[in-house]
Amino acid sequence: MTPPRARLLARLQRRLPAGEIQLQPRILAQYAGDKWFASHLPEAVARPRTTKSVSAILQFANRHRIPVTARGAGHGYVGGCVPLHGGIVLSLERMNRIKEINAADFVAVVQAGVVTATLQDAVAQQGLFYPPDPASRGESFIGGNIVTNAGGPRCLKYGVTRDYVLGLEAVLADGTVVRLGGRTHKNKTGFELHRLLVGSEGLLGVVTEATIKLLPLPPYRANLAIGFSSMRAAIRSLHAILRAGYLPAALELADAFTLAAAYRRTKSERLRGCRAHLIVELDGQPASVRGEVRDLQRIVQAQQPLFVEVGLGDNQCEAVWRIRREFSYALRDTGLTKLNQDVVVPRSRLEDLFAFAAQLQKRHGLQLACFGHAGDGNIHTNVMVDFQQPGAKARSEAALDELFCQVLAWGGSITGEHGIGIAKKRWWSVAVSKEVHSLHRTVKHALDPKGILNPGKFV
Amino acid sequence: MTPPRARLLARLQRRLPAGEIQLQPRILAQYAGDKWFASHLPEAVARPRTTKSVSAILQFANRHRIPVTARGAGHGYVGGCVPLHGGIVLSLERMNRIKEINAADFVAVVQAGVVTATLQDAVAQQGLFYPPDPASRGESFIGGNIVTNAGGPRCLKYGVTRDYVLGLEAVLADGTVVRLGGRTHKNKTGFELHRLLVGSEGLLGVVTEATIKLLPLPPYRANLAIGFSSMRAAIRSLHAILRAGYLPAALELADAFTLAAAYRRTKSERLRGCRAHLIVELDGQPASVRGEVRDLQRIVQAQQPLFVEVGLGDNQCEAVWRIRREFSYALRDTGLTKLNQDVVVPRSRLEDLFAFAAQLQKRHGLQLACFGHAGDGNIHTNVMVDFQQPGAKARSEAALDELFCQVLAWGGSITGEHGIGIAKKRWWSVAVSKEVHSLHRTVKHALDPKGILNPGKFV
Repeated sequence: MTPPRARLLARLQRRLPAGEIQLQPRILAQYAGDKWFASHLPEAVARPRTTKSVSAILQFANRHRIPVTARGAGHGYVGGCVPLHGGIVLSLERMNRIKEINAADFVAVVQAGVVTATLQDAVAQQGLFYPPDPASRGESFIGGNIVTNAGGPRCLKYGVTRDYVLGLEAVLADGTVVRLGGRTHKNKTGFELHRLLVGSEGLLGVVTEATIKLLPLPPYRANLAIGFSSMRAAIRSLHAILRAGYLPAALELADAFTLAAAYRRTKSERLRGCRAHLIVELDGQPASVRGEVRDLQRIVQAQQPLFVEVGLGDNQCEAVWRIRREFSYALRDTGLTKLNQDVVVPRSRLEDLFAFAAQLQKRHGLQLACFGHAGDGNIHTNVMVDFQQPGAKARSEAALDELFCQVLAWGGSITGEHGIGIAKKRWWSVAVSKEVHSLHRTVKHALDPKGILNPGKFV
Repeated sequence: MTPPRARLLARLQRRLPAGEIQLQPRILAQYAGDKWFASHLPEAVARPRTTKSVSAILQFANRHRIPVTARGAGHGYVGGCVPLHGGIVLSLERMNRIKEINAADFVAVVQAGVVTATLQDAVAQQGLFYPPDPASRGESFIGGNIVTNAGGPRCLKYGVTRDYVLGLEAVLADGTVVRLGGRTHKNKTGFELHRLLVGSEGLLGVVTEATIKLLPLPPYRANLAIGFSSMRAAIRSLHAILRAGYLPAALELADAFTLAAAYRRTKSERLRGCRAHLIVELDGQPASVRGEVRDLQRIVQAQQPLFVEVGLGDNQCEAVWRIRREFSYALRDTGLTKLNQDVVVPRSRLEDLFAFAAQLQKRHGLQLACFGHAGDGNIHTNVMVDFQQPGAKARSEAALDELFCQVLAWGGSITGEHGIGIAKKRWWSVAVSKEVHSLHRTVKHALDPKGILNPGKFV
């Protein structure tokens, strides 16, 4: 006997253009998870080509109380697009058109399924700049970036995805299509509802199209890669740079564990004995950037670095970032499972965070590798676990509990980039008061009274 | 016989600390309006000293369905804090403490009643920078800036008030105190509810305290003040500057009418025959800024300016801004009433906007003075009216209707800085679709089910 849900989904399939609703198990399996380890099979996969189809799907799902979990490229790190309650996974992959790039207005209009790097490359060809640079930008969609409010190294100077969303087309839980915000760089017309959808993790509506703010492309960039014999020296340099009135495009830090792994992988003699590694990137007009790089070299000398490498121009800068990417591969080489936590601390607590991580290692017999966007206090704190070891799971959970509690006690945040999803749900109620949790529920209930959008998540 | 509302307010007065609720007509009259012409008497003025009092007031008002209109310094331009339905005006003036400035975290914690310039000066003394610079910053409160999402010339490079709000303490309609967001520069914990309150014009909650993001104070600034013989030449220069990869701190433009008035006031020979005036301001490291100013001089020469004045350093820059402020006084000198509309157009429409304003002048027999933040398309379009003239009111309203319709047809916004309040209510329903209006009502109803917060406004 066909269960009612399956009959309903078959009916929806017939109503939509051919191929937009898939029910084959082989396809369902491809849409069960993201880059985190949790997964759950959906009962249908929707791959609509138009906003009209998205609206029809939601209207139908809302009427019949079928869960709908929107999905970008499936590149999240917290299980945000895992359809925990089954139902429909709504993939935006086919809505992948760049509809407009306007070099006079400094605006792009894009569908949700456009790959972020594709947008960045396309606008750069016209001398325009879309700054947010999540590590996944070569694969993740702009729509996914928007609903997770993606960050990246360059967000120190340029802000996160939110800051580039001028307007959104979105479909509400009941299928209503709304165009929120606008296309001007300034706009004070009503509530900032487009930005309420930014970072909402698919709980408040489905984003189908975005009007994106662009900047003039800085004509030049340069960076410094600096090795230190202690983390303290690196962090003091970071503070000295900011105190000198610099807001670099990026300030990236890596710790000794990460560097030791990178040495084993790359055999780069430079990294041997290096206890901290700082990348400082500047962009702007060529002569200005070159002069500022010289000034920064002077500033960091005060902390007696082991080495200072200067990268001038795109190619040399990219070479530095390639080394930085080796850090991630090097951690993978260890054979350990990396539990990547994107905690954020107030900048004054950076040194405390690295020291606390060292204590956690000793206390729980685990390795910790910390690196990331130190400029804004957003350190990817990777608990490295060998799950073959007895008690490894319990020890890693205890370490994470202590980490998150300490971060919150310092006035920090449990997530700076990845969001809550499923992965952080355990700490969500520690991170927010019951009044704030309740306000989340109020907003969620107002926009999605039947609770069909991405159910089972943090609200 | 005492009417029930008056009895209730007297009861509230007794419950709160002495002096926090005022009922004398003399005081009520001081809280009836802002800088726009509308006004309405409240029935009580609350001047709480603590968040606890704000909570008690709202809890009481919500139970008895008494309107509450929050008020900053009363410096708005759209009647946003006019208590249209009477009830209580809740002034934040006594909550004016800077609670913390942290030079390592780049964070300030301030109560809502702190004057914006006071905050700016206090953080600058520690080498820190709070960029948003509304014209009223010497008098307006940071709380008012937040709920109106205030802008200013520097927002071109640095963004608006929203972009500096890391966290808020707010009191909801029912008196619940919530602490939204946090103090880290990056934070992805839940919905961006603190930013939903930004720009909400007092309709969703009362902001009592803000945690503000600060930047490193740029050590140097310089500017160019450039006169042109045509608006077209000025706008071409503006586009050329952006195309060269510059995002100046400010790009401010003034039109011929404004300049003629300024000439009459200042007798500055430079302004004679000047049809457009552009201010370009840069900030950053001294050597970089000096070099870039030279480069910009070269760029603008292509449009054969009438003059180029260079201001180097704080004092010379301030002198240029003093002249800019003369423009406003000069418009006042005309004796006409200035209906200041802060429309925004996509940058490609700047020239069209000035041309359209010229047509409106002819068609309706009115003067228009346009100047403002051209870099982000936000031109203060001032309809100058002599209300003594027959039909002046009708003609000015017709001109405004045409202006707003045209701005919207270009993909522009009816307000970039001031908000809707009462002044723009007439065009609110033209500016947003019925679906978007309905979504505003949904959110409003969820957060303020009895509709006590600032009733009579745009939602």
